[in-house]
Amino acid sequence: MKKLILALLVLPFVAMAQPGDDAAVIKKISDEILRNGKAYDLLYQLTKQIGGRLAGSPQFAKAVQWGEQAMEKNGADNVFLQECMVPHWVRGGQDKAVIVEVDKRKTARALDVLALGNSLGSGTVTAEVLAVADFDELEKRKDEVKGKIVYYNKAFDATNVKPFISYGQTGIYRRSGPSRAAKYGAIGVMIRSLTESTANDPHTGAMAYMDSFPKIPAIAVGPRDADEVWELSKKAKFTMSMTTNGHFLPDTIGHNVVAELKGTEFPNQFITIGGHLDSWDVNEGASDDGTGVVHTIEIMRALQAIGYKPKHTLRFVLFANEENGLRGGTKYAEEAKAKGEKHIFALESDAGGFTPRGFSVQASKEQMTKLQSWLPLLSPYGVFEFTSDGGGADIGPLNRAFGIPVGELSPDPQRYFDLHHARSDVFENVNKRELLLGAVNMAALIYLIDKYSL
Amino acid sequence: MKKLILALLVLPFVAMAQPGDDAAVIKKISDEILRNGKAYDLLYQLTKQIGGRLAGSPQFAKAVQWGEQAMEKNGADNVFLQECMVPHWVRGGQDKAVIVEVDKRKTARALDVLALGNSLGSGTVTAEVLAVADFDELEKRKDEVKGKIVYYNKAFDATNVKPFISYGQTGIYRRSGPSRAAKYGAIGVMIRSLTESTANDPHTGAMAYMDSFPKIPAIAVGPRDADEVWELSKKAKFTMSMTTNGHFLPDTIGHNVVAELKGTEFPNQFITIGGHLDSWDVNEGASDDGTGVVHTIEIMRALQAIGYKPKHTLRFVLFANEENGLRGGTKYAEEAKAKGEKHIFALESDAGGFTPRGFSVQASKEQMTKLQSWLPLLSPYGVFEFTSDGGGADIGPLNRAFGIPVGELSPDPQRYFDLHHARSDVFENVNKRELLLGAVNMAALIYLIDKYSL
Repeated sequence: MKKLILALLVLPFVAMAQPGDDAAVIKKISDEILRNGKAYDLLYQLTKQIGGRLAGSPQFAKAVQWGEQAMEKNGADNVFLQECMVPHWVRGGQDKAVIVEVDKRKTARALDVLALGNSLGSGTVTAEVLAVADFDELEKRKDEVKGKIVYYNKAFDATNVKPFISYGQTGIYRRSGPSRAAKYGAIGVMIRSLTESTANDPHTGAMAYMDSFPKIPAIAVGPRDADEVWELSKKAKFTMSMTTNGHFLPDTIGHNVVAELKGTEFPNQFITIGGHLDSWDVNEGASDDGTGVVHTIEIMRALQAIGYKPKHTLRFVLFANEENGLRGGTKYAEEAKAKGEKHIFALESDAGGFTPRGFSVQASKEQMTKLQSWLPLLSPYGVFEFTSDGGGADIGPLNRAFGIPVGELSPDPQRYFDLHHARSDVFENVNKRELLLGAVNMAALIYLIDKYSL
Repeated sequence: MKKLILALLVLPFVAMAQPGDDAAVIKKISDEILRNGKAYDLLYQLTKQIGGRLAGSPQFAKAVQWGEQAMEKNGADNVFLQECMVPHWVRGGQDKAVIVEVDKRKTARALDVLALGNSLGSGTVTAEVLAVADFDELEKRKDEVKGKIVYYNKAFDATNVKPFISYGQTGIYRRSGPSRAAKYGAIGVMIRSLTESTANDPHTGAMAYMDSFPKIPAIAVGPRDADEVWELSKKAKFTMSMTTNGHFLPDTIGHNVVAELKGTEFPNQFITIGGHLDSWDVNEGASDDGTGVVHTIEIMRALQAIGYKPKHTLRFVLFANEENGLRGGTKYAEEAKAKGEKHIFALESDAGGFTPRGFSVQASKEQMTKLQSWLPLLSPYGVFEFTSDGGGADIGPLNRAFGIPVGELSPDPQRYFDLHHARSDVFENVNKRELLLGAVNMAALIYLIDKYSL
């Protein structure tokens, strides 16, 4: 009887203790990051001292060195590089587009444009422009395409509250628009930039040619110029001259930068946290994905700084070549598979350093229920939902290779596409507190998954 | 029996219809605002064509005219001005602070400062600086205060996830710091700006003298300069020269701008929606509170544009003089009381035009339950919580006069205090989509309260 009473007295305390402990650990993580966080200063270094760092570029090699040192300085048990071959696309000069003739009258209206990544330049080509709203209109007017420059005016749907939905709906114009126009004899393609920004900055990004069609040059035009071109197309015939110089140099050696905090109970079981180190060449790659890079380093630093000893080995990965090849993420999964590693979860940050709202995950129903049971622990720091929108691009290969759950930080998305692949993606457009709160919430989730598994 | 069957068939449909209808109306509101919203262009006019507009200034009078016209153009059933006397404080010149001597060696280190609003300038005063961490230290060292300039280094607590908590903890240094130092014979006060910004912009804001003590000059110093001053104070004695010229001109006539959409069922019952038209003099008053002003106009425009006929009369109010007197909000409540008006709810936007996260309200438990039952209708547009943090300043008098529930939009708060009362509070630091989403969620809440009451 005495024992039973003791059990009754003790049990509720034990049952309550855990959530209280978790809240205390997460508060400790948060305080460490908000008080002593290095993410913002690291981002300054990466963006201002290195800048744009497309795969294959000297800047990317410099970023690898920087990443290795930053990992070492910020608490890694060990750091290693993972070699992989990466494509080496170069812009090759200044991209230009000029409207040279409107209804047979000469003019010289320069547009603000950027060649699409992976596209092949062809010097200057001049042709009449066929402006279409979308692929449907292209198909209807396919007989008019031959010898022309096709302009796709497909815009973000402003009524989508989530801009990633708009990006999902329009991304195909950037990726496949050139070949779909080349199929009907177009000699060049221009797309409306994939953004709702009120500025006129053009937005680049990867495209891919279909091998069966001619590899024609392809550019994106700033949204304000896009409006003007579209209006013009409704009332006049006009000719445009576009100049592009993009080309591929031979594939070259790139690296994932990998750091570890060794697991104390399951050192051979891995949880991966990462972002991608490469960026486009036209900006500083601050929000895409400098913020993911420094989130990754910050989480490692903070967990180490508070003396946290993970049960599983935590792998912090700065991936190579997300933007135009995904060779880093692919290599990471291949090597994990080849070595027979056991992976249990991977988390990416590649949607910017804005105030966190949630995590998007790919997980089973049971895993989702478990994740959602943790929301009361995360909500004081900003995360209020888990959605089923999947993990990041770099950890996709890991997810497919191992069938493990994956996730990605979901920061507030409203400003992301103002900056995405545009010149404006610079350090100044990242806010320190928003950035740090992303690291807080990611670190908290990693702590919970390390402790309870999924 | 037939009747019963019919009832069974019909009832579930009727019961289901309402939420579906509400979702459809809110979607219509959202689409209208995201597609055709005028808030961003109106904000451009207010910030760039009028600019800073402190109560009593010619710019404020211009803003009243502008507000009246904007209301008329954007669908008001009627617009009227509500006259009230407002204070007329002017800065009177350029505020300066220079460290002129360190450990008896002459120097000339200029600090970036702004006089506090309502403070009285006294030309140039020069004195040794006594730097204290907080009021506790001031009290301990009160015997050292006489004849000196007191510097308060009270900073935001970085570990507060919600910056408004930090502002709540430090605001008293701006409001009462000068008189509390004057009490012990200080001849001037400087405070650390109330911000966690990484920039050095100083932040002004209202202070108030206690009549029993001398009215000494008071300034705020930028956060980077504040760090330097604080470090310096630990290792040296130093003398500072501060120049201020603030003074009051006689009270003058100001106006609330009020527009209405007339109620179809209860025209004599009012729901108030508002923001404040005045701003500090040193910036464009974009986020404080241009965004609240254009939210207010946009909500009216959108409800009218979709043909919504409110049951209650909706009052859209641009309040005068929130920043340094609250005379507009006070007048509005007084007049409502004097006329025996019936008010049922008031909603303010005065926390910026950032992506909405929730509403903070002052409401009974039952009202809170009702509000929370609407979250599934609001969450597609970004709002996921109602908190009990109260309504805005301008509708406080209405709340006290009528005991009605009040609320305020809670946008993401992380950037607000970077801009608040600083030169950086300009149009460029407002994002169009974030701004519009604030109007969407406010309009949706107003629709629900108009339809179901609270």
